[in-house]
Amino acid sequence: MQTKFLLGENRIPTHWYNVIADLPAPPAPVLHPGTLQPVTPADMLPLFPPQLLEQEMSGERWIKIPDEVREIYKLWRPSPLIRAHRLERLLGTPAKIYFKYEGVSPAGSHKPNTAVPQAYYNKLAGTKRIASETGAGQWGSSIALACQMFGLECTIYMVRVSHGQKPYRRSMMQLWGAEVLASPSPRTNVGRAILARDPQNQGSLGIAISEAVEDAATHDDTKYALGSVLNHVCLHQTVIGLEAKEQMKEAGDYPDVVIACHGGGSNFAGMAFPFVADKAAGKQVRLLAVEPASCPTLTKGVYDFDFGDTARMAPVVKMHTLGHDFMPPGIHAGGLRYHGASPLVSQLLHHGIIEARAVGQLSCFEAAVTFARTEAIIPAPESSHAIRGAIDEALAAKAEGKPRTILFNLSGHGHVDMTAYDDYLSGKLVDYEYPAEKVKESLAHLPKVPA
Amino acid sequence: MQTKFLLGENRIPTHWYNVIADLPAPPAPVLHPGTLQPVTPADMLPLFPPQLLEQEMSGERWIKIPDEVREIYKLWRPSPLIRAHRLERLLGTPAKIYFKYEGVSPAGSHKPNTAVPQAYYNKLAGTKRIASETGAGQWGSSIALACQMFGLECTIYMVRVSHGQKPYRRSMMQLWGAEVLASPSPRTNVGRAILARDPQNQGSLGIAISEAVEDAATHDDTKYALGSVLNHVCLHQTVIGLEAKEQMKEAGDYPDVVIACHGGGSNFAGMAFPFVADKAAGKQVRLLAVEPASCPTLTKGVYDFDFGDTARMAPVVKMHTLGHDFMPPGIHAGGLRYHGASPLVSQLLHHGIIEARAVGQLSCFEAAVTFARTEAIIPAPESSHAIRGAIDEALAAKAEGKPRTILFNLSGHGHVDMTAYDDYLSGKLVDYEYPAEKVKESLAHLPKVPA
Repeated sequence: MQTKFLLGENRIPTHWYNVIADLPAPPAPVLHPGTLQPVTPADMLPLFPPQLLEQEMSGERWIKIPDEVREIYKLWRPSPLIRAHRLERLLGTPAKIYFKYEGVSPAGSHKPNTAVPQAYYNKLAGTKRIASETGAGQWGSSIALACQMFGLECTIYMVRVSHGQKPYRRSMMQLWGAEVLASPSPRTNVGRAILARDPQNQGSLGIAISEAVEDAATHDDTKYALGSVLNHVCLHQTVIGLEAKEQMKEAGDYPDVVIACHGGGSNFAGMAFPFVADKAAGKQVRLLAVEPASCPTLTKGVYDFDFGDTARMAPVVKMHTLGHDFMPPGIHAGGLRYHGASPLVSQLLHHGIIEARAVGQLSCFEAAVTFARTEAIIPAPESSHAIRGAIDEALAAKAEGKPRTILFNLSGHGHVDMTAYDDYLSGKLVDYEYPAEKVKESLAHLPKVPA
Repeated sequence: MQTKFLLGENRIPTHWYNVIADLPAPPAPVLHPGTLQPVTPADMLPLFPPQLLEQEMSGERWIKIPDEVREIYKLWRPSPLIRAHRLERLLGTPAKIYFKYEGVSPAGSHKPNTAVPQAYYNKLAGTKRIASETGAGQWGSSIALACQMFGLECTIYMVRVSHGQKPYRRSMMQLWGAEVLASPSPRTNVGRAILARDPQNQGSLGIAISEAVEDAATHDDTKYALGSVLNHVCLHQTVIGLEAKEQMKEAGDYPDVVIACHGGGSNFAGMAFPFVADKAAGKQVRLLAVEPASCPTLTKGVYDFDFGDTARMAPVVKMHTLGHDFMPPGIHAGGLRYHGASPLVSQLLHHGIIEARAVGQLSCFEAAVTFARTEAIIPAPESSHAIRGAIDEALAAKAEGKPRTILFNLSGHGHVDMTAYDDYLSGKLVDYEYPAEKVKESLAHLPKVPA
């Protein structure tokens, strides 16, 4: 029985897939955080190079991947598609479980898929330095790596709670040549203001984004890079799903349900968007985003305009949001702590094209341990949400006594997240309740956007 | 230009290659540590299951890989062969550099290649528990993983200095279900005796081996497993070189020099032994083992009979050794701190079929950083010795102005070794001198073996 479905490097996709071409309605406009009027390219050019802005706004279905980017992709892509035979047997399920494994990248996650083209387009545009933020450190290490590949400098604002919990990720960024600051930091106005009010502030992705945006906006040779949420980021990640579709063909199979974890949305987008095209063409396939119950953006947030960051410097976009000043509890899956969601993922959920589910941290770690003890790979805590989703689908198939073909994205390995496993195995972790009161409060602060 | 050479899982080797069939002389006998007379299978059966003992003694050139083992190998094998285009360009060398990347295994190193068959044969023989030791933790995590795959219990004695330096490796073992003890431990007579003399003893691979051997020898349901040195371990690792030969064919190339780092010898054996067969058949190929200057077993040790462990409980074998009570300095490449070497590697060196070179820790980290910043992958500190060797060969080719085809084994990734990189980048690491006086002392304690 075949376990692994590989593609040669000549089968790295030549084009990214742009889901905007298959949306039932055009995306809502992006608004300026000061005026709440639609942004112009001129507003955004201080932050992004022109080619990334073009991709951000493009309605073209297919966008060519530059040869220079494909050359770097070749270092680890195409990533393998693996059939989880041993997990299936343990569960005693009639379901077939496949996973795409993005942990083979040099940074150990899917994030370099977009970091590399972002660094490339910045290099083309003459950028000298990239400022960015990171939660768990997976994005930060990936953009550091990509900057190193193209000879750019890199400054990373790392959410303080992760900076403490994940020293290895910090070291990886430094090894790849980046400067790493714990956020909130004394380097920016935003950071200084927060530290003045609360010197022990543990940070959030929202704050770190504010700092990186300020850094880029106030330095001519510096641009900003975001590891999730934005359209061009989701676009670049579609290499995952495009490859997976080819590999499912090699397996002679097609998924009934496609699953990925959801933080800002890029990992879900990367896996699921290419299947939206199939769905638009009439195929039956469910697309399921799994998010943490402690930061339930898609399942408990509202679909409305909100700021992308805490300090209200980033653009206002229409998305599922818990409110830009929502501060999630310090769960270990640091990459899934964002208050908002990709506007494209949000819109697809709004249209009923995708589904979302929230799961507790303990049930995710339980799934991750089961996975590590059957399929051998140690998952990143973020990815464990997708595993939870996949196991639940497999158990539902068992309860129904019907086959089901499940495909999920294992977005990264957990070799640098072992303290989280330590805490879980020693019984130190707890489930956080959905913070309904806090969300009510933060949702009261949404911007008043004129109709 | 092609970067990555992949093989489908149907091309995982069907047989391991046994280099004994191509040695110019039979291996020296293995002696009982008490009597110094050749051991009998009956002496060894308390420690190893019969099928591993058979492989240990076999002279057959090809030994079939069981289907159950190949099924587990499929989770990550064949591993990729990668052409280091970017490193070549940086060095400005006419040499071509290829590396085989074993870091794609679930444990992040080549060690599962032998852990899996060892666990399998133990399961077949009715073993309930495996006791083993680990230095850097790469072997320990691999045997823990393999035991988990076959439903065996696992106890790991982990060298105390690594137990402190590498908590993530300890957590990986625990996640895969093993019990992990810092060695010297109070669990064994050997450990208790050492702790009584020196409560702060930082341990060594020799001590940890003594503890694991004692544990296995004193429990009926428990066997011992070793991650390097022994013939059957080297045998299992030959999947690396066998695959690499196929992949070099796909690349339309053949190496002038094959390089791997050397600790106990299994990683070097795995890559180089299949090329010994070619050499025996008249092919020109250099085989280079690179070891740390602080533990220079092959380049400064003697080729003589010595105990495999510090407590003189393990068999006496003819090998390159620094003396069984040699205690190497606490370098970061914890996997390369063994006082001895594989008898087969030692014999090949003695016959002049392979070469050895010792390199300093700082020059290895320099090579590793160069590699991470060009080829993106962060190497394990052990593997950095092979990179140093490969870069030196590429620079020699440049100095000569002649092409050279270099193949090296990148035995693992360094994601769980980031503190070592931290120390290097912050200037905290130093080079250790070759401890000539200590070696003179320890070499005086070799057993007096009757001719």
